[in-house]
Amino acid sequence: MRAVGPTGNSYVHGYDARANERLIDQAEALAELLHAGTRYPQESRVLEAGSGVGAQTITLATRSPGARFVSVDISADSIGEAGRRVTRARLGNVRFCQADIFSLPFAPASFDHVFVCFVLEHLADPGTALEVLGRLIRPGGTITVIEGDHGSAFFHPDDAAARSTIQCLIGLQRRADGDSLIGRKLYPLLVAAGFEAARVEPRMVYADASRPDLVDGFIRKTFTAMIEGVRDAAVEAGMIDAQVFDAGVTALYRTSEPDGAFCYTFFKGTAQKRH
Amino acid sequence: MRAVGPTGNSYVHGYDARANERLIDQAEALAELLHAGTRYPQESRVLEAGSGVGAQTITLATRSPGARFVSVDISADSIGEAGRRVTRARLGNVRFCQADIFSLPFAPASFDHVFVCFVLEHLADPGTALEVLGRLIRPGGTITVIEGDHGSAFFHPDDAAARSTIQCLIGLQRRADGDSLIGRKLYPLLVAAGFEAARVEPRMVYADASRPDLVDGFIRKTFTAMIEGVRDAAVEAGMIDAQVFDAGVTALYRTSEPDGAFCYTFFKGTAQKRH
Repeated sequence: MRAVGPTGNSYVHGYDARANERLIDQAEALAELLHAGTRYPQESRVLEAGSGVGAQTITLATRSPGARFVSVDISADSIGEAGRRVTRARLGNVRFCQADIFSLPFAPASFDHVFVCFVLEHLADPGTALEVLGRLIRPGGTITVIEGDHGSAFFHPDDAAARSTIQCLIGLQRRADGDSLIGRKLYPLLVAAGFEAARVEPRMVYADASRPDLVDGFIRKTFTAMIEGVRDAAVEAGMIDAQVFDAGVTALYRTSEPDGAFCYTFFKGTAQKRH
Repeated sequence: MRAVGPTGNSYVHGYDARANERLIDQAEALAELLHAGTRYPQESRVLEAGSGVGAQTITLATRSPGARFVSVDISADSIGEAGRRVTRARLGNVRFCQADIFSLPFAPASFDHVFVCFVLEHLADPGTALEVLGRLIRPGGTITVIEGDHGSAFFHPDDAAARSTIQCLIGLQRRADGDSLIGRKLYPLLVAAGFEAARVEPRMVYADASRPDLVDGFIRKTFTAMIEGVRDAAVEAGMIDAQVFDAGVTALYRTSEPDGAFCYTFFKGTAQKRH
């Protein structure tokens, strides 16, 4: 759900200004939901693998002011934007590094903790990525992984066209060698990558009219905007009729009316590097 | 997800011994998830509308020992079983009453609180049921409603046949004038029934190998057992091929293996009777 473009993948969400704005809205509305429980100790060395434009970086660095972050992304543009945001936020505890997640320029065991958010969904081999990142963690250090799962979305009023638009995004991400159903797989992925004490928690966004910030910030400006962003690609790929897609988007917006409701689940996994 | 048979509905889950055992397992595994936040004050008068065999009654009455419960169900057999359980649990704060939820023998405003769990899903008109129950609550009193939503289930490994078996249960419940997608609708239902300060929370069961009790108690003994229970009805109704159904059930059990994961969301709504 954000702008990180790993090697070899055509990034489905795009890099335009509107996408970036959406990502900032999402970051604010969801920071507490996603980051609750994540604080790094004084002087700990933390690698953020896949910083994108810094949406999570700001929250991470603000919440753990004594930790020293190294934030990596494959995209120079994203790194540039993330750096400007960190400067604007007057955070002095983040260094940036442009690099491929599969060939990071760091020595084994050189970090206490690794943080990965909305990155694995874009990788053809998320298991290998976790293994590679695991080598950079000292024994007893931790990894934290946050991913969405587009198959977790359901809503009222339910609508077949709306469900089809979501299937388009899932299908496009699959064609780009990604996996937007990865949230539900975090536990087995962490175990298979050799981590210990893996623990995964669902973090559901539930939005109804009693939570107007989430209705606007998540249903409209994050989820439905993300779906709208793949309209042309989905239609061009012959996955869906343009009219059905547009009806589906209208139905998604409809769930943000006062009698609607929307559910989407993020998954947050933590695990330990073997001693 | 339990044995309550409201007026005019053929109850899809059955009343046999195995079903009852499953319901007890579920009640134990899920009591904390569902009941967290629900405590009734000393001397308060609480109506449990639709007690079934007492799965929730025991938890309710144990957690609020000073409250006085009246538990109602349409089925004399269920009331009898619930009564035996309450006696075995040595709970002295529950009275039982066999009655139809739409014509309860109580005066208006005669309860401080109403508790409804896994009942609305079986009703052709859940909105009217909420209005009827609302009249029994004194001004400023509360209603608590807990329902599942079978459309919230997703799992790893994902499987098309497994998804089809769930659709069978949803379809059978719809044919019986019920609605197994009701969880996501609680907020608009409560508002439309005239309640104030409605608040709905998702309560997700997330089960992976790090939570063996839930894997066994929920994936296997509750959810998949419930699906298995509608096999013959679904096949006889021509909704699904028997072999596909069986493959789907196998796939659901498969999600309880060490590399699997399962998600299901209950919704808990609370709201206040207008002053």
